[in-house]
Amino acid sequence: MRIGLDMMGGDYAPAEAVKGVRLFLDNAAPEVHLVLIGDEQALAPLISDARLDQSRYTVVHSSQVIGMNEHPTKALKEKPQSSISIGFHLLQNKKVDAFISAGNTGAMMVGAIYSIKLIPGVQRPTISTILPREDGSNGLLLDVGINADCKPENLVQFAILGSLYSQYIMGTATPRVGLLNIGEEEGKGNLLAQATYPLLKENALLNFIGNVEGRDIFKETVDVIVCEGFTGNVVLKMAESFHDVAVRRNIKDEYMDRFDHEQYGGTPVLGVAEPVIIGHGIARAEAFKNMIRTAQQMIESKLMDKIRESFVEVAKEN
Amino acid sequence: MRIGLDMMGGDYAPAEAVKGVRLFLDNAAPEVHLVLIGDEQALAPLISDARLDQSRYTVVHSSQVIGMNEHPTKALKEKPQSSISIGFHLLQNKKVDAFISAGNTGAMMVGAIYSIKLIPGVQRPTISTILPREDGSNGLLLDVGINADCKPENLVQFAILGSLYSQYIMGTATPRVGLLNIGEEEGKGNLLAQATYPLLKENALLNFIGNVEGRDIFKETVDVIVCEGFTGNVVLKMAESFHDVAVRRNIKDEYMDRFDHEQYGGTPVLGVAEPVIIGHGIARAEAFKNMIRTAQQMIESKLMDKIRESFVEVAKEN
Repeated sequence: MRIGLDMMGGDYAPAEAVKGVRLFLDNAAPEVHLVLIGDEQALAPLISDARLDQSRYTVVHSSQVIGMNEHPTKALKEKPQSSISIGFHLLQNKKVDAFISAGNTGAMMVGAIYSIKLIPGVQRPTISTILPREDGSNGLLLDVGINADCKPENLVQFAILGSLYSQYIMGTATPRVGLLNIGEEEGKGNLLAQATYPLLKENALLNFIGNVEGRDIFKETVDVIVCEGFTGNVVLKMAESFHDVAVRRNIKDEYMDRFDHEQYGGTPVLGVAEPVIIGHGIARAEAFKNMIRTAQQMIESKLMDKIRESFVEVAKEN
Repeated sequence: MRIGLDMMGGDYAPAEAVKGVRLFLDNAAPEVHLVLIGDEQALAPLISDARLDQSRYTVVHSSQVIGMNEHPTKALKEKPQSSISIGFHLLQNKKVDAFISAGNTGAMMVGAIYSIKLIPGVQRPTISTILPREDGSNGLLLDVGINADCKPENLVQFAILGSLYSQYIMGTATPRVGLLNIGEEEGKGNLLAQATYPLLKENALLNFIGNVEGRDIFKETVDVIVCEGFTGNVVLKMAESFHDVAVRRNIKDEYMDRFDHEQYGGTPVLGVAEPVIIGHGIARAEAFKNMIRTAQQMIESKLMDKIRESFVEVAKEN
């Protein structure tokens, strides 16, 4: 298995990316081969310092970098030698089995959708966030920002994608799906939530448990929470800000520590045909390691095939 | 000034309501007279135990109670002798200058809108929540639940109502208004946010500072944050759940303590013609005291007149 990693993306690249690779390789099975995409000259001394096992990686040189604030489509077009462009090119041509970058999020989305394409039947790809829970387990919330306006059918698809991710990557046997809403009973909420509820309820692929409210987001009673990307993004950033408060105020708590974005590193772009993971711009070594591990799990579990099979079912139902 | 208080509303009424009255009267100016609406027989021993100064209050007997789960419109119609019905009747007939209840929220909303009416020009009333900030001050977020689907003009009106409340009740000289969004720049967000931004920007009554994100909600850089009631309600309940986590995990922190709903007690229904305050169902003594104090401030500051004047301006601009 070959995993491609953009070594130039993120605020602390390439140094932290190299450290992340080292952390990953220290504990990884030998069948995982990493394809490190970046500026050879910048990488060489860092790789040498990190004493990476040469049999475990290949460096693919990229002479350009897409900046964090560049226009995604324009940058991808004008910088074919950028690490992101090369990464998608390798993924498209099956030279790698997954591609990871903590660089320009927009460019990652555009590349994922246009060079990798969506799985047949998927209307829109989605990104998610891990929800730490007090019992040590994790829930999943999606969408968290790329689908600000949604139709009910979009939310149903997010629920299916999230359930499969929860099952095959997070190890939840039969993920309980909840609809983020502002009341418990069916019929509550805005027009979108009201229209989505019956669709989730009747969908045979889902274990739908009903509405969940803002107070339930971090509870163990629900595994996958769906909402449009506007509310999801506000929830994500608000949770991050609570962690920042805890750090700033020197609150020592094991559970609050788990809200550290560093631990999760990035989000898969669910719905595209190959494993693509977008990292947080502030990703450091631990985050890079975790993203590589997630990519490995996505490949090993054949998540893309599971999604493909489910969306064949979706097509049959419609 | 006469403030009407529903003594039968809320999970811990009437005992906690009486305690709240006592707390309020201990420090209140003599010109505030409280009108306590409730079952005389239930109240008598509690009032006697609390040793309330008889010159400071009047009991108005109510023989019915609207339960927390009753259908609002139906209950108001079928229970004219309920404490909520009587409260609105007194307010409508200027026998009290404000009405407060921690009872059935729906009945309070219906009563406010249909028996008290909206201030001319206001399209929809709104409810808000206080946002504690680390420097000790408070921000305001609205709407937090009664307007799940909104048009851009509704959000502009919430901004005006919130600014006036922030200025006259919370003491913020020139409240900075932010639009809750999922990106910093104009043009970001869902269709509603995109359409609302230019309206807020051009409104002469507002000190609009642009978009704010989930991470900015508790920052000191913005005083009034507007959003539709779906996202606002999720934010409100999620913040409450973080406080619950802090309590459950025995996290001792002065700032986290300020997320205790008890401290604020309730929310005014902004946009209706008289001061109406709806309490949290779990309101206890401190919350009742704070709601009475807020009502007093709303009367003293002539907030309703300020809102009326602003909406005359709004009408002129349209």
